[in-house]
Formats: sequence, structure tokens, C-alpha cells
Amino acid sequence: MKNIYMIGIGLIGGSFAIDIKKNNPDVVIHGISRKDETLNKALELNLIDKKATLDDIENADLVIVSIPVDATVKLLPTILDKISEDGLVIDAGSTKEAICKVVEHHPKRRNFLACHPIAGTENSGPTAAISGLYVGKTNIICEVEKTTFKLQEKALKLFMDIGMRIRYMDPVSHDKHIAYVSHLSHISSFMLGKTVIDKAKNERDIFDMAGSGFASTVRLAKSSPAMWTPIFKQNKENVIETLEEYINNLQQFKELMQKDNFSEIFNEMENTNHIKQILNGIK
Amino acid sequence: MKNIYMIGIGLIGGSFAIDIKKNNPDVVIHGISRKDETLNKALELNLIDKKATLDDIENADLVIVSIPVDATVKLLPTILDKISEDGLVIDAGSTKEAICKVVEHHPKRRNFLACHPIAGTENSGPTAAISGLYVGKTNIICEVEKTTFKLQEKALKLFMDIGMRIRYMDPVSHDKHIAYVSHLSHISSFMLGKTVIDKAKNERDIFDMAGSGFASTVRLAKSSPAMWTPIFKQNKENVIETLEEYINNLQQFKELMQKDNFSEIFNEMENTNHIKQILNGIK
Repeated sequence: MKNIYMIGIGLIGGSFAIDIKKNNPDVVIHGISRKDETLNKALELNLIDKKATLDDIENADLVIVSIPVDATVKLLPTILDKISEDGLVIDAGSTKEAICKVVEHHPKRRNFLACHPIAGTENSGPTAAISGLYVGKTNIICEVEKTTFKLQEKALKLFMDIGMRIRYMDPVSHDKHIAYVSHLSHISSFMLGKTVIDKAKNERDIFDMAGSGFASTVRLAKSSPAMWTPIFKQNKENVIETLEEYINNLQQFKELMQKDNFSEIFNEMENTNHIKQILNGIK
Repeated sequence: MKNIYMIGIGLIGGSFAIDIKKNNPDVVIHGISRKDETLNKALELNLIDKKATLDDIENADLVIVSIPVDATVKLLPTILDKISEDGLVIDAGSTKEAICKVVEHHPKRRNFLACHPIAGTENSGPTAAISGLYVGKTNIICEVEKTTFKLQEKALKLFMDIGMRIRYMDPVSHDKHIAYVSHLSHISSFMLGKTVIDKAKNERDIFDMAGSGFASTVRLAKSSPAMWTPIFKQNKENVIETLEEYINNLQQFKELMQKDNFSEIFNEMENTNHIKQILNGIK
């Protein structure tokens, strides 16, 4: 592996670049972005060695695509058109069905590996990139059997070297499950932020009373709308289903309160405390 | 100040005990609890110096009440009955209206200071007590004018010594505002946990896909039902109001998705990103 092309050099791509370069000091990392400003920032931060364009991809041993999922769907066929016979293209999108679908019949489908590294922070852009982001984190690989075995091996080594554990899943199950453990959390957080901000417009000093519990619950509301709008769009049906279940649970909690059924409220919370054991397993 | 009585020696009381003792090595900290097991644990952890009972309170210079808010409402009049002329009683409850109300006409009302330290973690019990919990945190004091000036001064010195900043507020506003920035966060987190746990019953490995974002959003769902049920009960009207606003916002978000109005979804998230600046101010 000599020439790596990063399409998108924000939190996800930039953090890949840092750790790959650390493990492989001889590789040349090329950055591709719509915005020249992003490329300059990435050069300044030493995330990339050189600027490049899509036309240079024919020289790539590896291309990592970490841009909003609508842009990935649009661009991925073109990237595969340009990749060499031995080149590997990896994506890092939070949705998998639409991305896998768009290259389903592409003649170079076997050069592509569909991935979702479950890692990140609420920050975005090249300045958000950090070393070690992927250590101990799960990388979900979809339709592994559709990728050339040799390129699978290459990708696995890369992920192992930066400390990731691997899980295999089909794209439909991925999108269905990730709606619960990731997409819904973002909406619950954004709407909590909105509810309190709206209230604070009329009531002064309300945020003066906020503590670390509020900060934790609302943290994801700092996330990038440019990243998340296309995720919700691509995973619309699953996300709506999780939202309906969540709203029903909140509604039911409210009704228990209205009926003064506080013993049942106690039970609801006690049953959910079980999340402790589950969270102990999450890094 | 020589004899301090802690009624309840969990996360809140225990953390007070640690830092007060650090600043005042000569004080004797007496522990009072319904459960002998808790007292033994608190002795073992050096949170308290001695076990005591409610009858000993006549010897107290200071009593700190940090037990569930329903127990505070029940016990506070008795504690005030027993306190000496110069003794100070402080509570740490997450609701203030019912607590202030129950001692409104008590002959020793001036010996009581109603407080809500905005500090904590999702853990509970004596083992959850930590040093430095209150550094930089806000303590909301209600109806300060109803407490003897000398005892106000004594309390302020104590809070300043352990690093707290003070805000004054009336109990009605306190309960109204805290419903937004604390009580609602707990419900949103508990119901998020419930929604995902319910789903995980039918779908294996769903938690294998959960990352730090989910962990952060659902953290408060580890909180103690014994603490939180009486809080929701005492602050019922305000909490129901915040829940209705939150459910409406979620409902509206869902409808925007159903109508494919993703540009408005983008705007909603972008407006809420403003939470970044607000959270920078929260420790």
C-alpha cells in the first residue's frame, strides 16, 4: 500500500489518516475535498501529504470515502469507474442499504468494501480528527462476500492495525438496527435541545441550572446537520419506526404520571436500569 | 462547627461529607440512615465518623438532608423540631416547592436553608460518593430571606469552601425550570433506553452496534428509581408540561420526515446546534 486517497477529511477520514500514517509512515496520503479550504486545513494539520482530485484516483491503492451519505451514493459509481484493477474502495457511511444498492451491478463491485465504523464524536471537520478514535471500536462490514478476497484481507489488516473489531451484517439489518442505537439517539438529543432552547427564550437563566446530566443527554445535538440530514433521508422508514416507538413510550410515561401511577413509573425505570450492564460493554 | 449530621449518605451526602471533612478535619461527621447496611458501608469508606439516630440531632451544629424528596417532606418537620436554636438544617432535594411548603409555618423555619446543588452522577449509594463533586457547580438556594442571617453566612462559607457558586431563586421558578434542564433529560434518557431494550429483545446483537453517542444519551437511564420517582411525583405538573413540549417536537420532526421536508429538518438541527455555545458554559 503506497498511495491512499481520502475523499472527505473530516472527523472520520482525518482520524483514519492519522492512525494509518502512524502505522505506515511510507504511505502518501492524498486528500480530495469539494472545498479547497478543507484541504488547506488538512495539510496544515498534517492529516494529508498532498492535495488531489478525483481524476488521480487511478493511482490509488486504497480510497477511503468519508463524506455525507448522499454524496457517497452520488459519487461512489464514479470512484469505482476510476479505480485500478487492484485498488480498494472503502466507505464509512452510517447507512448501508442505499450505498450497497447503487453499486450492486457495477463492473468493479468487487473492488468495494461497504463499512460503518461505529466511532465518532459530536465534532466535525478536519480539526475534529484525533488519533486513536478507532481503538476498540466496532467496524460493521456489509456484503463482505461481494468483495475480492485479497482486498478483504488488505482491509482487515488495516482495521486490525488501528485497533478495530469487526462485525459482519447485511445492509438491511444494519440500517434497521442502527436506527435504534444511533439515529434515534441523535433525534432524541436534538429535540431535547430544541425543547429547552425554546423555553429559555422566555425564561432567563434557565441554562444556569443545567448540569452534567443535561450536557451528556444533549451532547449529540451538536452534531453536523450536513452529515445527519442525508442519513435520516436514506434511512427514513426505519427512523420513523423508531421515532414512533419512542414517542409511544414517552406518551405512556406521561399518562402514567397523569394517572398518578408512580409505582408503575418506578417499575419502568427499574427495568430500564438494566442498561447499566449493557453500557459496561460499550467503549 | 463541630458536630455535623448527615441524613442520607449516598452520592450527594457522602460527597459533601468527604469535602467538608477535608476542609475541617476537626468536625465529627455523624451518619443517619434507615439502613444499617448503608451506615456500615459509610463507616468503612470513612465518609462518617459515627453512627447516629434522629434523637441525636439536638447536638447538631449542622444537619444535611440528602434523601429522596418524599422522605425529606415527611422528615423535615421532625428534624426542625429537634434542632437546637443555633443549629442549621440544609436539604439537597431536586424539588423545592413541596419541601419549602411543608416547613412554611414551622416555628424553626429560620433554622432551615432550602438548597439544590446541581451536581451528581448517574450512580448512587455511599460507594458513589466522590471528592470534588461540587467544585465549580451551582447551588440553587431558595427563599434565602427566610433563614436567619447568621446561619445563611455559615452555609455560604461551607459551600464556598467546597468550590460551589451560588444562585438564588424562588421555589416555584426553581421547580418549573429544573423540569426542563434536569427532569426531562432523565425521562428522555430512560425512554430511549426502554425503546432500544424492547427492540433488542427481538433482534440479537443490537447493542453490539451501539457507540459512545448512544452511551452518552442513555447514561441517565442508570439513575436510581427510588430517587427519581418522588421527584417526578412532586414536580408532576411541570414535568408533564415539558414532556408534552418534547413529544410535540418529536412528533413534528417525524411529520417533517414523513413529508420528505428534509430542508426543514436541516434547519431544525442547525438552529439547535446553538446548544454548543450554551454547553461550553456547563461544567
